[in-house]
Amino acid sequence: MTGIADPTRGQPPRTRLDEFEDYRDRMNSRIGDIDHLGIKRFFALDSAAYREGALPSSTKELLGLVASAVLRCNDCIDYHLGQCVDAGFSDEELIDALNVALVVGGSIVIPHFRHAVETVDLLRARRAAGDAGELAAQES
Amino acid sequence: MTGIADPTRGQPPRTRLDEFEDYRDRMNSRIGDIDHLGIKRFFALDSAAYREGALPSSTKELLGLVASAVLRCNDCIDYHLGQCVDAGFSDEELIDALNVALVVGGSIVIPHFRHAVETVDLLRARRAAGDAGELAAQES
Amino acid sequence: MTGIADPTRGQPPRTRLDEFEDYRDRMNSRIGDIDHLGIKRFFALDSAAYREGALPSSTKELLGLVASAVLRCNDCIDYHLGQCVDAGFSDEELIDALNVALVVGGSIVIPHFRHAVETVDLLRARRAAGDAGELAAQES
Amino acid sequence: MTGIADPTRGQPPRTRLDEFEDYRDRMNSRIGDIDHLGIKRFFALDSAAYREGALPSSTKELLGLVASAVLRCNDCIDYHLGQCVDAGFSDEELIDALNVALVVGGSIVIPHFRHAVETVDLLRARRAAGDAGELAAQES
Amino acid sequence: MTGIADPTRGQPPRTRLDEFEDYRDRMNSRIGDIDHLGIKRFFALDSAAYREGALPSSTKELLGLVASAVLRCNDCIDYHLGQCVDAGFSDEELIDALNVALVVGGSIVIPHFRHAVETVDLLRARRAAGDAGELAAQES
Amino acid sequence: MTGIADPTRGQPPRTRLDEFEDYRDRMNSRIGDIDHLGIKRFFALDSAAYREGALPSSTKELLGLVASAVLRCNDCIDYHLGQCVDAGFSDEELIDALNVALVVGGSIVIPHFRHAVETVDLLRARRAAGDAGELAAQES
Repeated sequence: MTGIADPTRGQPPRTRLDEFEDYRDRMNSRIGDIDHLGIKRFFALDSAAYREGALPSSTKELLGLVASAVLRCNDCIDYHLGQCVDAGFSDEELIDALNVALVVGGSIVIPHFRHAVETVDLLRARRAAGDAGELAAQES
Repeated sequence: MTGIADPTRGQPPRTRLDEFEDYRDRMNSRIGDIDHLGIKRFFALDSAAYREGALPSSTKELLGLVASAVLRCNDCIDYHLGQCVDAGFSDEELIDALNVALVVGGSIVIPHFRHAVETVDLLRARRAAGDAGELAAQES
Repeated sequence: MTGIADPTRGQPPRTRLDEFEDYRDRMNSRIGDIDHLGIKRFFALDSAAYREGALPSSTKELLGLVASAVLRCNDCIDYHLGQCVDAGFSDEELIDALNVALVVGGSIVIPHFRHAVETVDLLRARRAAGDAGELAAQES
Repeated sequence: MTGIADPTRGQPPRTRLDEFEDYRDRMNSRIGDIDHLGIKRFFALDSAAYREGALPSSTKELLGLVASAVLRCNDCIDYHLGQCVDAGFSDEELIDALNVALVVGGSIVIPHFRHAVETVDLLRARRAAGDAGELAAQES
Repeated sequence: MTGIADPTRGQPPRTRLDEFEDYRDRMNSRIGDIDHLGIKRFFALDSAAYREGALPSSTKELLGLVASAVLRCNDCIDYHLGQCVDAGFSDEELIDALNVALVVGGSIVIPHFRHAVETVDLLRARRAAGDAGELAAQES
Repeated sequence: MTGIADPTRGQPPRTRLDEFEDYRDRMNSRIGDIDHLGIKRFFALDSAAYREGALPSSTKELLGLVASAVLRCNDCIDYHLGQCVDAGFSDEELIDALNVALVVGGSIVIPHFRHAVETVDLLRARRAAGDAGELAAQES
């Protein structure tokens, strides 16, 4: 591997979470090109709902996570889990929130609970790989 | 009103919230008599889900409120709003949480948002009446 | 009460179940007048789904009850509970079926579980009153 | 009744639809006082969604009606039925739209179909009474 | 390419929409072999709901699309989008209909909105490829 | 078969059902490691709901199947279909139960009905392959 840069070297293999995020980014960009005021405003309103307000942003991401879980939307769960991990919630706190979703929404939520637990693991692995990568970059 | 005790004197008129709570208490008592282990355990699990854990109890009541709102259950909204008001959330915080429910769940949630706002008003009026009643009792 | 017929004599007071059944009958009659082939066929298909087939009719009424409970429709729950009671299911069997609905559908089903338990009580009371009425008629 | 104006004279008795509309107006006014930008924008976005656009406003009201029916929200059904009647749809067209909702959403929609048919009848009766009232006013 | 027929020559690569349509055709054929009168009638009723009636067929396909979107069923969205494109609706009209679904159903519909926009693009690309193929066939 | 053991020899190719079951087993094992009493109890309650009680276990699996179908959860449908096939229900009985789900839940259930029919075919093929494998083992 002498002298040739390999952009994927040392990177973890791509996961379903990476695929989903790429798809979401590509489609959100496509949707951004749509000339419809209602659509534009809806997306702006959606982003604004989780910003700091009477409640802290982190609490609202947790609300978004539980709402997504009881409504059983894996893509929405993945999005809000990413935000919740970024906001600093521990695994124990995320599980405690998802437990509320399980009890409110019932066993029909179990497949989405499995998905959510896997996503948390993927997010933690990504972060660990990122930290290791940064460390390796600093050392080299 | 000389000498005759009137138990309803000075009390606010009964509201739909009072009716609902009486009905819920009566039926929960009736359900408590049912000899089915699964039912008993489910109700125990439901209560336990909102107790202090990795997340504070108050946050979990807020999660229960938003889950109830997006799943569009007025009885559940009323129950969790009562718990949230007891936990000390302000009107501004409750509205900020319900705004997440509106955005996630859409305009189909609006009738339940109306219901929730009315319930908050009823809960605040009850508390104000309770405070006034206590004050009157102290003064007499 | 000599000589004057009182059609409500000895009858239990009207309940929310009586009101619902009258409303349903009145509206089904109104809907029967609608000249739309799709509507007519849908109602016929709905009735046919619970008739004796590869599965006995009683099992299919129980399926209809649990489907109605997890989809959280009180009117549908009341209808299928009436059919299930007519089919001879005991209270223990109905509760065991509703327990499946609670576990699958979660605590958001609890208000409908309360409603269902009350409906079973109303149906049993109606039957008891009917038996008492028949007995009184035989004795007089 | 000589010489004293009776504002309710000749008017049809108040219906559940009148009650609902009063409640909605009162609560929408209450909600209008809430100082939360997200809530304000959501209500504005909701109104805007049914205005003339690439599709005519009337078609979008019909879409709102069917969406409300399959999501099983009586208040939303009543609102959109009012708009659809104002937009000039005939009973036959409204039933044809509701038939799509029945087929897509299944028998669990039937109680809401009953409600919708009753609402159409109430709206037509109100209009007939209004026409009769105008005629009487012109003749007197 | 002398003399050897290549059936895939000049054809666009297979998409998820092609895969879905093949699967649906295969399974519908499998279901057609099932000897259950209720199933047969339900499928017939489903087809009939979108035929010309008091409302034009095209309007009913649009109703089916919005019902599918708020109920969050990608397969149903894809089916009705295909019908809507065949019925001649423009991209602007489809987006305007999907905007109603977004507002009624909330941000939980966003992943299905992304899916729908991608499906419209796939349907337009297929049509463009078909036109190009026909043109090439006419010219050769 | 000269000396080299081939564990996959004579086995049917892996299906989406095999993949799902592996994933479910892996994630259930992962979830079993989570130290949260509510989660543990919820999973225990879910298992217990289908055990012999006032109703036979097989009837409750059928209730679970129809509840899963009307709530439109393919993973839950697959799980309960497996249990129902193990409990001895015939294809005709399963279709008759799924017909109730179709009528109650509407055409939005059709994609899940397709999925369910395919799963029944996969389960029957697996059983046939298992029987053939056992027969071959006995004969060799």
